[in-house]
Amino acid sequence: MRHIFVIGIGAGDPDHLTLQAVKALARTDVFFILDKNEDRQDLIRLRRRMLAEHGRPGHRVVEAPDAERDRTTPAYAAAVDDWRVRRADLVEQLLSEHLGEGETGAFLVWGDPSLYDSVIAVVDDVLARGAVGFDYEVVPGISSVSALAARHRTTLTRVGRPVQITTGRRLAEGFPEGVDDVVVMLDGRAAFTGIDPDGLEIRYGAYLGTPDEILVAGPLAEAAPRISELRESARERKGWIMDTYLLRRSGS
Amino acid sequence: MRHIFVIGIGAGDPDHLTLQAVKALARTDVFFILDKNEDRQDLIRLRRRMLAEHGRPGHRVVEAPDAERDRTTPAYAAAVDDWRVRRADLVEQLLSEHLGEGETGAFLVWGDPSLYDSVIAVVDDVLARGAVGFDYEVVPGISSVSALAARHRTTLTRVGRPVQITTGRRLAEGFPEGVDDVVVMLDGRAAFTGIDPDGLEIRYGAYLGTPDEILVAGPLAEAAPRISELRESARERKGWIMDTYLLRRSGS
Repeated sequence: MRHIFVIGIGAGDPDHLTLQAVKALARTDVFFILDKNEDRQDLIRLRRRMLAEHGRPGHRVVEAPDAERDRTTPAYAAAVDDWRVRRADLVEQLLSEHLGEGETGAFLVWGDPSLYDSVIAVVDDVLARGAVGFDYEVVPGISSVSALAARHRTTLTRVGRPVQITTGRRLAEGFPEGVDDVVVMLDGRAAFTGIDPDGLEIRYGAYLGTPDEILVAGPLAEAAPRISELRESARERKGWIMDTYLLRRSGS
Repeated sequence: MRHIFVIGIGAGDPDHLTLQAVKALARTDVFFILDKNEDRQDLIRLRRRMLAEHGRPGHRVVEAPDAERDRTTPAYAAAVDDWRVRRADLVEQLLSEHLGEGETGAFLVWGDPSLYDSVIAVVDDVLARGAVGFDYEVVPGISSVSALAARHRTTLTRVGRPVQITTGRRLAEGFPEGVDDVVVMLDGRAAFTGIDPDGLEIRYGAYLGTPDEILVAGPLAEAAPRISELRESARERKGWIMDTYLLRRSGS
């Protein structure tokens, strides 16, 4: 029986790896890397370093260009569905060509595989098709959300109260109902600059756990312009950005 | 300068420890354990095992009876505030009596310190009082929420959509507005049995990552009675329960 690990490898600090992840890395015969042709060279280097340090001798690495998602269409969910199908085709092919019977393969996921990541869904799709048989296991990781809270030494939840995790796209439609604490991910367009800052505080983090880490905290009205500036100059300098933030309604 | 670590030690599997947590454990001179006089003997044993395995030779363990929270009053937030003050008194005293200048102390937190845990707030309170000087650092951990998702091999978020993390008490007031995916923690009273199950699926986990782990998934209407039964018999058998679940509105 083939075995697949989906391994959360943390938010950017190699020491975010759990002992469970380290053991899974050491049990893996073949690492599947879906190359996004991306500019995130630091992350690619960091991933290589993790494999060099924790991978078993003789492990193989199979890299393939990832299926590309149509980012131009406004039909976000439909585009993602189409992408999922093409990605399942790709993963199915990779597994059948590169993973022998009785071998163990792994997909590595930045952060935690449970938050805004598609690998579990794709692996499920491939499993449901039935053309390649395997069992699989998910290894949880330190998400950028946990890393953000830790670096700001804050909690996400206040006593007895909820927290919502959402996207920049959703935030742009308005501050969510029924919560005073909101974590925003996937915000490429600085949605935090477009909402009414009255009574809101922000705790922002970029490149969490890495040498480039940026942390900003303060009232949203004051912090938003500073964050926008830091974020743009960082994006220019490094070619990419990975960030998240907590918005907290103060005093409520 | 004294140094304090607040270390997330994961949801119940010793391999949830991150390399960062392992290094922090190994740097700690004094572990402060606030004893809740609890029946959770398995967790106490597991914590001891972690310290034996990862603690430095000669580390000290200071155990003290934790300040008790008034669980009889309906004024939940006020009772928690009062408890925080008494807890800050206790922690201040412990640090000044047991942690020498230049030494490193640590508080261990099950799961991740950012979710429904009071240690960061208490340490902040003690720091703000100024009577004991120290710096401190939070080490994120695998939360029961991440562990739940991993064990069910599911994501918390669906494409482009939010997830809310809330309490059993809040859920009892109704399914939250504006979200179709809700993670519930601190549900001592099985709030999942009191809401309209129509269109809802549940992914439930207790004692996640431990040999006693219980996982149940299915439509809420069918699963709720089974979970209630499993939960009650587990609570009777072990004397305590630690559980969490994801409610997902299907088809939406």
